[in-house]
Amino acid sequence: MSERAPLAPPRFPDMPDIPGVVLASGHCGIRTPGRNDLLIASLPEAATAAVRLTRSRTASPAVLWCKRVRRHRRARGLVVNSGNANAFTGQPGRAAVRTTAEAVADVLGCKPHEVYVASTGVIGEPLPLPEIVKAVPVIAAGGEAGWEAAAEAIMTTDTFPKGACAETSIDGRRVAIGGIAKGSGMIAPDMGTMLAFVFTDADLPGHVLDDLLGPLTDRTFNSITVDSDTSTSDTCALFATRAAPAETPIESADDVRLAAFREALEGVMADLARQIVRDGEGATKLVTVTVRDAARQAHARAVAFSIANSPLVKTAVAGEDANWGRIVMAVGKAGVPVRAERVGISIGGIPVARGGSVVPGYDEAPVADHMQGSEISLEVSLGAGTADATVWTCDLTHGYIAINADYRS
Amino acid sequence: MSERAPLAPPRFPDMPDIPGVVLASGHCGIRTPGRNDLLIASLPEAATAAVRLTRSRTASPAVLWCKRVRRHRRARGLVVNSGNANAFTGQPGRAAVRTTAEAVADVLGCKPHEVYVASTGVIGEPLPLPEIVKAVPVIAAGGEAGWEAAAEAIMTTDTFPKGACAETSIDGRRVAIGGIAKGSGMIAPDMGTMLAFVFTDADLPGHVLDDLLGPLTDRTFNSITVDSDTSTSDTCALFATRAAPAETPIESADDVRLAAFREALEGVMADLARQIVRDGEGATKLVTVTVRDAARQAHARAVAFSIANSPLVKTAVAGEDANWGRIVMAVGKAGVPVRAERVGISIGGIPVARGGSVVPGYDEAPVADHMQGSEISLEVSLGAGTADATVWTCDLTHGYIAINADYRS
Repeated sequence: MSERAPLAPPRFPDMPDIPGVVLASGHCGIRTPGRNDLLIASLPEAATAAVRLTRSRTASPAVLWCKRVRRHRRARGLVVNSGNANAFTGQPGRAAVRTTAEAVADVLGCKPHEVYVASTGVIGEPLPLPEIVKAVPVIAAGGEAGWEAAAEAIMTTDTFPKGACAETSIDGRRVAIGGIAKGSGMIAPDMGTMLAFVFTDADLPGHVLDDLLGPLTDRTFNSITVDSDTSTSDTCALFATRAAPAETPIESADDVRLAAFREALEGVMADLARQIVRDGEGATKLVTVTVRDAARQAHARAVAFSIANSPLVKTAVAGEDANWGRIVMAVGKAGVPVRAERVGISIGGIPVARGGSVVPGYDEAPVADHMQGSEISLEVSLGAGTADATVWTCDLTHGYIAINADYRS
Repeated sequence: MSERAPLAPPRFPDMPDIPGVVLASGHCGIRTPGRNDLLIASLPEAATAAVRLTRSRTASPAVLWCKRVRRHRRARGLVVNSGNANAFTGQPGRAAVRTTAEAVADVLGCKPHEVYVASTGVIGEPLPLPEIVKAVPVIAAGGEAGWEAAAEAIMTTDTFPKGACAETSIDGRRVAIGGIAKGSGMIAPDMGTMLAFVFTDADLPGHVLDDLLGPLTDRTFNSITVDSDTSTSDTCALFATRAAPAETPIESADDVRLAAFREALEGVMADLARQIVRDGEGATKLVTVTVRDAARQAHARAVAFSIANSPLVKTAVAGEDANWGRIVMAVGKAGVPVRAERVGISIGGIPVARGGSVVPGYDEAPVADHMQGSEISLEVSLGAGTADATVWTCDLTHGYIAINADYRS
């Protein structure tokens, strides 16, 4: 593990206890000794589940497994290994996922299809299945407990464990939300993280979880990018133990009693997503790109991602250069209709260009000041409508090159 | 100008004389003294022209000018400045293009719409129009002559001037082709270069030039990428003086007598395109990505560009790391249908993966050897059909970060 990223939060949060969720992590032998590489989460019998997965066409067998089992909308267990993505590993890779799920099901006393599986790490290498199968009962019985150890066990090039939590209420009843995530490189939309797991004791049926998870994933994990590269393993799962029963059952994600919960859940997911960007490989600045006044939300997102993925914009941010011409370039290449003469640009809230050219009497000094901070805001108005989108990214630095020209991921 | 790129060809080629084409370059005051920044090319009365332009939605006024004048399919002059892209400069920028074309038309004794205009450099800053207008007659009358000086006058972050030429024949008659180009960063498809100008004395009407230029641009300049960022100024123009008349007129690009010429023209354009990649910012390796056995050409291109634009693939090449898992990732994220179990990968001609997993008994040693060379070949077979595509890119190195976190382009 490298030095903690400069944008890392000061410490891991104090996470809530979610009754019925037991996290156990340990070493199964994929990574070097002393570094945990296996997480097993067990859930109570009533637990529901929903998941969003990468749309990569070379998705890993673990992703394909989750895609199959999610239709049951139930989960009793989750098993995650780091250090090996078990991707592009053919039939042996698919068999390894099933065998791992069976091993965990044996220990938890449930069906294999009630076990979610995720893997992250090197692509293309066979998973050391015997070691994993041997470690499952040992770690399940006596692994390291708690959120922070769990978040550490799923890390790869991450420099800090990522956790976020919230307390909220549904129908007057206190509900807790806790989540962990990992990710640092190979981060791009289409399920914009490697792995995120969020747990709650809310009493919500699986289809409600699923309806909540989709739009919130788009607004959080699918609104970040580190390097425009989409992983084969991206997985975001939400589990509900239902230990905090609602007065009367909640049967729809549109139930008004879910307003506070939805907001709290988005907060946790957005926090985890931004932590991934803060730990972006080589990142020294967190960049928020907001595109406003678009004709459609899809246009706003396309322009925002075109800016957020542009190597020239990201190196300008790294160099603290208020080079707004590169934003103009990224707007132009986004592939959506744009009328240049209506485009406005602000940096750090300071108008730079308006109506297709630089603002009269433009003074670069305050913009240059903003560029020296660690949180950069880039705003574009398209002057075409009322839709907007916000995405988060980081700068592109020598650190990214150093990490990726050496590390095999 | 930085040190000459490590992948630069040993020297500028010996270019042919193309009767009627006069190149004059000099200093008009945009760049620092001692560095030429204006090129004026004059063409004889009979000359025809065709042009391909960026599809950027924030295209520069010079691009929009060429888009308007190209319908005449004729050209008497070309004026190019470097150091300022005159992009996102509003109404004054549009007026500057017209005034520049008028100044050149005055000197050449032609109509303004017979003058092609191109600008490259910083985006968003006003063009120093009085200086340009003043310099036009001076440079036209007594500028530096020749191809190499012309190629130097249009450079920005380029580390070497780019030229390519061929001699071929049409209908038994000798024909010359000579071209120059510039480009180093902000290089991506959708007219994949900043500027390229190709001249020939072939006797071809404008609509034939146009029909030739389109498909060849797609196979050459639109098949390269340095950093996935598309410029506001990309322009590729082809001019024919018609000084070498055909026996009987050629009225179609499909005329069989054009076979050798088409091949020679593609050779010149591909040579210039690859020189741009060889001068890619920070490049130390030229990477050829070939995707075969795709169901459609568009799929092959999408997968090839997904690989060629992937920061993780490009940093792996920089690090001489045979990390083929990153190629798997890039295939998966390309957004086209792929059956992973049919995908094969070769590096340097050596099979690495086949049928969705690593080849039996894979030996990394010869692949690692290939990765240490300066020309890298990555091949993917999709096992879905017969279409293929080849694109060229370079590695992503500390040099790219150093250039772009400092230089304002």
